[in-house]
Amino acid sequence: MRVLLINPNTSEGLTDRLAAAARGAAAAGTTVDCATAPRGVPYISTRSEALVGGLCALEILAERHQDYDAAIVAAFGDPGLGAARELFDIPIVGMSEAGMLTACMLGGRFAIVTFAQALGPWYRECVAWHRLESRCAGIRMLDSTFRSITEVQEEKESLLVDLANRAVAEDEADVVVLAGAPLAGLAAKVRDRIPVPVVDCAAAAVKQAEALIALNPRSAEAGSFRRPGAKESIGIHPALAARIAHRPWS
Amino acid sequence: MRVLLINPNTSEGLTDRLAAAARGAAAAGTTVDCATAPRGVPYISTRSEALVGGLCALEILAERHQDYDAAIVAAFGDPGLGAARELFDIPIVGMSEAGMLTACMLGGRFAIVTFAQALGPWYRECVAWHRLESRCAGIRMLDSTFRSITEVQEEKESLLVDLANRAVAEDEADVVVLAGAPLAGLAAKVRDRIPVPVVDCAAAAVKQAEALIALNPRSAEAGSFRRPGAKESIGIHPALAARIAHRPWS
Amino acid sequence: MRVLLINPNTSEGLTDRLAAAARGAAAAGTTVDCATAPRGVPYISTRSEALVGGLCALEILAERHQDYDAAIVAAFGDPGLGAARELFDIPIVGMSEAGMLTACMLGGRFAIVTFAQALGPWYRECVAWHRLESRCAGIRMLDSTFRSITEVQEEKESLLVDLANRAVAEDEADVVVLAGAPLAGLAAKVRDRIPVPVVDCAAAAVKQAEALIALNPRSAEAGSFRRPGAKESIGIHPALAARIAHRPWS
Amino acid sequence: MRVLLINPNTSEGLTDRLAAAARGAAAAGTTVDCATAPRGVPYISTRSEALVGGLCALEILAERHQDYDAAIVAAFGDPGLGAARELFDIPIVGMSEAGMLTACMLGGRFAIVTFAQALGPWYRECVAWHRLESRCAGIRMLDSTFRSITEVQEEKESLLVDLANRAVAEDEADVVVLAGAPLAGLAAKVRDRIPVPVVDCAAAAVKQAEALIALNPRSAEAGSFRRPGAKESIGIHPALAARIAHRPWS
Amino acid sequence: MRVLLINPNTSEGLTDRLAAAARGAAAAGTTVDCATAPRGVPYISTRSEALVGGLCALEILAERHQDYDAAIVAAFGDPGLGAARELFDIPIVGMSEAGMLTACMLGGRFAIVTFAQALGPWYRECVAWHRLESRCAGIRMLDSTFRSITEVQEEKESLLVDLANRAVAEDEADVVVLAGAPLAGLAAKVRDRIPVPVVDCAAAAVKQAEALIALNPRSAEAGSFRRPGAKESIGIHPALAARIAHRPWS
Amino acid sequence: MRVLLINPNTSEGLTDRLAAAARGAAAAGTTVDCATAPRGVPYISTRSEALVGGLCALEILAERHQDYDAAIVAAFGDPGLGAARELFDIPIVGMSEAGMLTACMLGGRFAIVTFAQALGPWYRECVAWHRLESRCAGIRMLDSTFRSITEVQEEKESLLVDLANRAVAEDEADVVVLAGAPLAGLAAKVRDRIPVPVVDCAAAAVKQAEALIALNPRSAEAGSFRRPGAKESIGIHPALAARIAHRPWS
Repeated sequence: MRVLLINPNTSEGLTDRLAAAARGAAAAGTTVDCATAPRGVPYISTRSEALVGGLCALEILAERHQDYDAAIVAAFGDPGLGAARELFDIPIVGMSEAGMLTACMLGGRFAIVTFAQALGPWYRECVAWHRLESRCAGIRMLDSTFRSITEVQEEKESLLVDLANRAVAEDEADVVVLAGAPLAGLAAKVRDRIPVPVVDCAAAAVKQAEALIALNPRSAEAGSFRRPGAKESIGIHPALAARIAHRPWS
Repeated sequence: MRVLLINPNTSEGLTDRLAAAARGAAAAGTTVDCATAPRGVPYISTRSEALVGGLCALEILAERHQDYDAAIVAAFGDPGLGAARELFDIPIVGMSEAGMLTACMLGGRFAIVTFAQALGPWYRECVAWHRLESRCAGIRMLDSTFRSITEVQEEKESLLVDLANRAVAEDEADVVVLAGAPLAGLAAKVRDRIPVPVVDCAAAAVKQAEALIALNPRSAEAGSFRRPGAKESIGIHPALAARIAHRPWS
Repeated sequence: MRVLLINPNTSEGLTDRLAAAARGAAAAGTTVDCATAPRGVPYISTRSEALVGGLCALEILAERHQDYDAAIVAAFGDPGLGAARELFDIPIVGMSEAGMLTACMLGGRFAIVTFAQALGPWYRECVAWHRLESRCAGIRMLDSTFRSITEVQEEKESLLVDLANRAVAEDEADVVVLAGAPLAGLAAKVRDRIPVPVVDCAAAAVKQAEALIALNPRSAEAGSFRRPGAKESIGIHPALAARIAHRPWS
Repeated sequence: MRVLLINPNTSEGLTDRLAAAARGAAAAGTTVDCATAPRGVPYISTRSEALVGGLCALEILAERHQDYDAAIVAAFGDPGLGAARELFDIPIVGMSEAGMLTACMLGGRFAIVTFAQALGPWYRECVAWHRLESRCAGIRMLDSTFRSITEVQEEKESLLVDLANRAVAEDEADVVVLAGAPLAGLAAKVRDRIPVPVVDCAAAAVKQAEALIALNPRSAEAGSFRRPGAKESIGIHPALAARIAHRPWS
Repeated sequence: MRVLLINPNTSEGLTDRLAAAARGAAAAGTTVDCATAPRGVPYISTRSEALVGGLCALEILAERHQDYDAAIVAAFGDPGLGAARELFDIPIVGMSEAGMLTACMLGGRFAIVTFAQALGPWYRECVAWHRLESRCAGIRMLDSTFRSITEVQEEKESLLVDLANRAVAEDEADVVVLAGAPLAGLAAKVRDRIPVPVVDCAAAAVKQAEALIALNPRSAEAGSFRRPGAKESIGIHPALAARIAHRPWS
Repeated sequence: MRVLLINPNTSEGLTDRLAAAARGAAAAGTTVDCATAPRGVPYISTRSEALVGGLCALEILAERHQDYDAAIVAAFGDPGLGAARELFDIPIVGMSEAGMLTACMLGGRFAIVTFAQALGPWYRECVAWHRLESRCAGIRMLDSTFRSITEVQEEKESLLVDLANRAVAEDEADVVVLAGAPLAGLAAKVRDRIPVPVVDCAAAAVKQAEALIALNPRSAEAGSFRRPGAKESIGIHPALAARIAHRPWS
């Protein structure tokens, strides 16, 4: 199985984090290739940045989807996920989606725990888009600044563990979802210091991608995720324009 | 009052339609200037196209917001609305938002009536984003093809009236929202053939923009629409990059 | 444009407050006339009092609606709004409705801030009636007594500002709605001491009334706000009886 | 046990219907006295009429509540119920509330079946006020005119049975609530022609009143139904004014 | 009227508590007989135990239902209620259902107050099953251990009163439901120390059973609680097997 | 990986169907062992039967869980799932849960399609328990009888395909979930005759079990699925009693 992990952030360091967590969970026969957004911000934390990152994800998919069995949009908040799912034929998994749906099998309500206040509004919209609000016990965010987006998980490890424990004790969460590409790989390290299951979203995403590949669903020709009809466009990335126009591209 | 009406579609013909409807409803002292998306598709009807159009709206705002008292994102579905609202200090009104909220003052539940099946999925997500699902009696779409996006309202006028009447009779709608830039200006023409109030979204948007300007709200420094902190980016439109970085641009 | 502002409370002092706030926001060509309830309590704060005030609003409308282009029910809680909307042909705007819908264009969730505990239950029912609960971050009320209903906004100004700030910090409100006729006009004064947009309901109501007049919607002949068929009654206000019976009255 | 059944409609014929159904279900030691609204319409079917009827119910309660152990507001839609419950110390049961809550013990979702289209909007608001929408399979109304409000149940018996059967077959209702004072007593007659339990609201209301009397709950001194503080009023019914002012009245 | 009160717990001491509370509230002509689960745990507090207790309730009903006019499943959480209701022809009342629905007539939102943390998850699912979440202000549980399940109401009386008062003050509950068979009979004792109505579930259940018997509803032959078609089984209690197979049993 | 697939129905033929579908989707290193309920009915279709089947699932788990890395409760409706999840330390996957959550990654809303009317009520409660109602476009059931539970998928294949197509066309489903153990394995056969992705629940369940095993979550010591404290019981299956009492069993 060939899985394309798309990091809609521009930070290569995050891509490395994501790749390590995803490959660590992948099955023997699974290859995980990675792509990093060529435009945008090092780390998406707002609606505006998600718009930029989501469009980059579409462009990367337009260029490379034909070589893969499935793809992962690897930023919490799932930028561009719905658009990607309607436009391409391979299964597309969102990293937050995978984390939340996996959490649903481990308890009634999950808490989302992350490292920065700025992420709250966009994460909340993501939970709502997936219509999982009644499964979400809350979103907990650290309120301090951090030094480096690629090292924030080491820098804040014990604060994040405390925050997760508060989510369990005060919000009555049954499961903790560690959210955001910068926290990829952290769940395994803190597993024994939090009294409920902790989900690593990058790991969950690769397992869900494998599951969808194995189930081999056909692509939709009806319903709200059917591929839209061909349409001409101007001024957009040539591979994406070709895909929207139902034209070949190479 | 100076209002910037942004058409996130690339069709100048639609900009003309929107401008006419907006100016027709504007108060004496209101100037409505228009901008048309330089990239994308003639008419947004999918999630992917909304992503492209939403980003264009941000870029246009980044270039021109300082000359206006308020702006309108003038495509049903409100592409980029949340992002625009967090990034800029002037009031930003979504055309579907304005249509739906105005409809709320004219009855309990509104029906959204539009001219093409392709628009359904994206419109449904828009209603959910605004959390107005319990006020929405349904979305009704014509299922036939049309010749020209700029002339579709003339071509389909009687079919749209029939559809609106079915929404009233079968979905128990109290109000009809005629949705989509191509239908701007239609409400006044069909007013007497539909037994409930009919809302023109472009007209509603300009009135709501005027209302917000008059109320003169401060811009948010807290809450989920506060302006995000300064951040560097790469490869994006220079005016937008400057805005995201809290740098002046001219 | 001629707008009738109906104060369902018996306090003339409140009518003066409401008139000043409404006229301050009205457009150049708008005339705002006022009516004060001849029966009931100086200030509505309970379900029982809202029943009395709502009926007074209907009676005033029955007497005077023909001279106006729109009317405002100017008590938070919108007493009699649904009844008024089904019974009369002109647009009727509720003051709380206008405040809340306007707030929806300034952020995701609004807090309702008011000056007395007694108002909570009735306000909560009002939010539910409008089906805006998912847009409401909470209702915050002062718990102290006050000296005079017409001077409460001066007396409690700094406490109300503190309360609004708590709603922003603790309830994660994006917008503050200052609720209740006695707070009309306060928003402009406290604007700079609250870090999110603050909505003045009387001002919002007059802008929404103007918007509806400009849009010129037809009155409903179908749907749940169609005018009910003619019916005889006994013992009620003659103008209201005439309106219910579809009889002229002068 | 002494129960006061208040008919907020002015039709004495309906009071007789209600009294017969209520007394037929009452326990041996229960006395059911009746009161008919002195003002308003023969049969409440709109929001406006419910406002009038609700206020009458308060006035009747203000005059007579001290002689009773509980009271029933005997119109579907429960006009004035919340106001009555906050203002008086005895248990107050709404006829629609009693019908719906009783139905909840007989199945998952109930259908409301009634005899006139005009009743739909007001009934729908009533279901929402009680927050029982997820238990309500739908509201079904006959669409024909009828000769006499007091004889409508005989005139339309077979049509109502057909309508109830459609609610079961098409809306998947588990229980049928026959709604409206004019249908009091009908459930027993049609019981064998509808394949699910059928609830008579007047009968249910008297049983619920008896249940509340037996349980002997204290009246609320806290919460959203605590009795409001004393307040002066002008121009309203003297018994109601006295009750609102915490003054004795006789 | 003959009512069978089924205690799905194995503790006879609890059966005695339940019987006393139920008989204390029963009308003159009502006989309350009791049955205690022969298998399971002394007191159900988890989903697993509810499964065992629910099955016992079905077996007891299969053996004895023909001698009764109605039955009560007398454990908070209503184990087996839906199954019992679909399988037997007599009205079946759940003790938590009766408590919650009765509470709905005494205020807007009720708090559930109980004596042990372990009960929370199962109670929460019960509230959701009845779709009464929007009427539930919260579930409050003591967090200390107790000596004896049959004496816990005496041991914890003052702590439970404190907890109920906190539910009123902090969760804005209008009514308190004292939950769990071990608290049967407590409401009357603490009535004057809690400022809102307090519901005794065992007492409420017997009143609701009497109400349903008096209303004499037919059993469902359609809808989601119709009796399932005959089916053979293996290895289950012979009376239950007979009932499922539509075979007589004696 | 060792997975225990528990068929809570007594039909060995269904176990064979389930085993074949699960093994067909399992990864190379996964062993799927099966267990069939020793008591109950050949095929669970009601709430009562689910109670029996759920208890059997707990007993089988109590006997065998120590030899497995994860278990599947392999009946649509997930009988006993919550109880199993709180009682045992290994991941437990419900077959309907797995089908529905997997469907969530393939579209916005799924339709549940099954072969018998009798299953509707129980399936609906299952969707609600998982709080996935807003993701469920509807439940569609054939209304004809069938000859054999183990052959129903061959007998009804074309009718089920028609039903799935109606769910897509009329209910606007984006994905079809073929529900019920008797339909295990059918999805692959009908894949090309339905225009949206079709999910096989048995296959989905084995993939989700593998995903959870790979993610290696700790078992909960807090939250609503923590293992309950030790408790004595009487009269229940010895392995289950031992598990509930925290006693070893072999």
